[in-house]
Amino acid sequence: MDRTERLLRACRGEPVDRPPVWLMRQAGRYLPEYRRLREGISFLDMCRDVDRAVEVSLQPLQLVGTEAVIFFSDIFTPILGTGVGLDFSPGPVVAEPIRSAEQVAELRIDDPRESVPFVFEILRRLRGELEPQRVPLLGFAGAPFTLAAYLVEGKGSRHFSTLKRMLHREPEVLRALLARLTDLTVDYLNAQIEAGAQAVQLFDTWAGLLSREEYREWALPAHREIAARLDRAAAPLILYVNDGAHVVEEMLEAGPDVISLDWRVDLADAARRAGSRASVQGNLDPCALQARPEVIAAAVQRMAQEAEPARGHILNLGHGILPDTPVEGVRAFIDAARQLGSQ
Amino acid sequence: MDRTERLLRACRGEPVDRPPVWLMRQAGRYLPEYRRLREGISFLDMCRDVDRAVEVSLQPLQLVGTEAVIFFSDIFTPILGTGVGLDFSPGPVVAEPIRSAEQVAELRIDDPRESVPFVFEILRRLRGELEPQRVPLLGFAGAPFTLAAYLVEGKGSRHFSTLKRMLHREPEVLRALLARLTDLTVDYLNAQIEAGAQAVQLFDTWAGLLSREEYREWALPAHREIAARLDRAAAPLILYVNDGAHVVEEMLEAGPDVISLDWRVDLADAARRAGSRASVQGNLDPCALQARPEVIAAAVQRMAQEAEPARGHILNLGHGILPDTPVEGVRAFIDAARQLGSQ
Repeated sequence: MDRTERLLRACRGEPVDRPPVWLMRQAGRYLPEYRRLREGISFLDMCRDVDRAVEVSLQPLQLVGTEAVIFFSDIFTPILGTGVGLDFSPGPVVAEPIRSAEQVAELRIDDPRESVPFVFEILRRLRGELEPQRVPLLGFAGAPFTLAAYLVEGKGSRHFSTLKRMLHREPEVLRALLARLTDLTVDYLNAQIEAGAQAVQLFDTWAGLLSREEYREWALPAHREIAARLDRAAAPLILYVNDGAHVVEEMLEAGPDVISLDWRVDLADAARRAGSRASVQGNLDPCALQARPEVIAAAVQRMAQEAEPARGHILNLGHGILPDTPVEGVRAFIDAARQLGSQ
Repeated sequence: MDRTERLLRACRGEPVDRPPVWLMRQAGRYLPEYRRLREGISFLDMCRDVDRAVEVSLQPLQLVGTEAVIFFSDIFTPILGTGVGLDFSPGPVVAEPIRSAEQVAELRIDDPRESVPFVFEILRRLRGELEPQRVPLLGFAGAPFTLAAYLVEGKGSRHFSTLKRMLHREPEVLRALLARLTDLTVDYLNAQIEAGAQAVQLFDTWAGLLSREEYREWALPAHREIAARLDRAAAPLILYVNDGAHVVEEMLEAGPDVISLDWRVDLADAARRAGSRASVQGNLDPCALQARPEVIAAAVQRMAQEAEPARGHILNLGHGILPDTPVEGVRAFIDAARQLGSQ
């Protein structure tokens, strides 16, 4: 079974020889080779530099043996085309945060193929490289709630209280913003699929700040709409919600092919709930890659067992790899996943 | 039924006429009167200034009508007596983070009555003020894991990856640190009870960053030990875990009188689990105090209903009040709680 087949079958709940493995933020600062390529260039320029973006996307395949490639970019990349002034330091910083209906209306939601063409060039190049090796290519996007969180708050925040004030005081402004961002995200992901992405992951980094009831009102509808409007026959959809232990049921209700779980979610319980409805992805704490290789291997084996009640399982972390992660920890994780097939 | 009786009975699951109400961080920057008293004085000096600390502790009683008083201080106050260099900006910043067994051994764990005597003077003064009005006085402390998190990391952090590296690589150092902090916390809370605190709340702000399995190893044992060693006949124990939707069962296993819930925890589900084992406290999102008064009132009514399966309920937020909270929102919350009795 080749790597592309294994990943796509696992996403769709078809039989596989063992769970495939990749890691969120696998192309990142923990790799010395990545840090070298990033030297003297801003994060934003790196995302737009097709040659470098292709190169760093491929690094984890060569350096640590991950079994899928996700293209190097940021969840905020499609926002570059909307006319919003943006910087990264290191998270997105919005020059003029969106606080009014007028600003929402002024957002340019153009065809991403024209507004951020480099993304699709990167994907086409990567697919060309990966197809002969039978390694699957993943696309991704930020979910509308998370994009809105940064656009309204202006930057990352512990409580996102400006965003939540809008939610309580001007819900119609936030609703309009989410509607526009949902259209953008659908176009952006479908264009990625057209350019060669074989599965796509939707990242909702901040929806876990919502209570369950608010999540149903403010995050779930966009997930559902995106799930319905994507070309799912061409690429399965993976839904990741950070800090979402309280909304696993709602993640399933959105109807993705795979739910990708934070490390705080009880994997065995989530797998039982998912059952035949969805596959599960995850969910080791990225900090656990600091442990000894045999401890990491035991965690991988335990996750594989706990995920069994779900129709499929993709081994991954519960959050992106952190910069201070030892490369040997990442290798131990991937090696342990590969060993599963031979037991 | 007076306020002291109502709160203490609710903690212990005895019949009450309606749920009592107070709010985490009710003495805080959202109050203009608080901001005036804080002008030109550092947070640390404010905690040590008995007159001012007493005055701000009493402000919410007079200004918004809360039904319990928690003494003004910080979870890091007892650390002032350990010899660790500390500053607040605004969270705790540790001059020399603890990274070795030697540093753990050097911590001075003296009798808090001698190392931070002002705390008990504040409590005695407050109890003297409140007893005639029959308003209950609450003490509090940070849980050992949360204190250790700051002491090891050096300051607040999104992932606390230095702390987690210690957990994986030098577990015996972290275990020794937690043991010493557990002794300190027990002494500190028992001394508060002796000085007049009628119930005490243990805050575990960062234990929610742990997976369920790690929580059982690194947070639960200290909770259990504190629960066992406190003078519970004199003061019931309330246990709060921030972002702990995945560890409600473990919170109950620690054996506190009350579990205090983050806004992301499904209150109805937690109340069912708690049943006759514990009362529940919470759990409105503090950001929801931005909503219109009638929306806040409806949320209070819903929480009271959802909490019914538990043996008792204390109305509160799911996190401390945020600085940008409108005072009228806080009043609406408390007024709605008081209305519950008359329906």
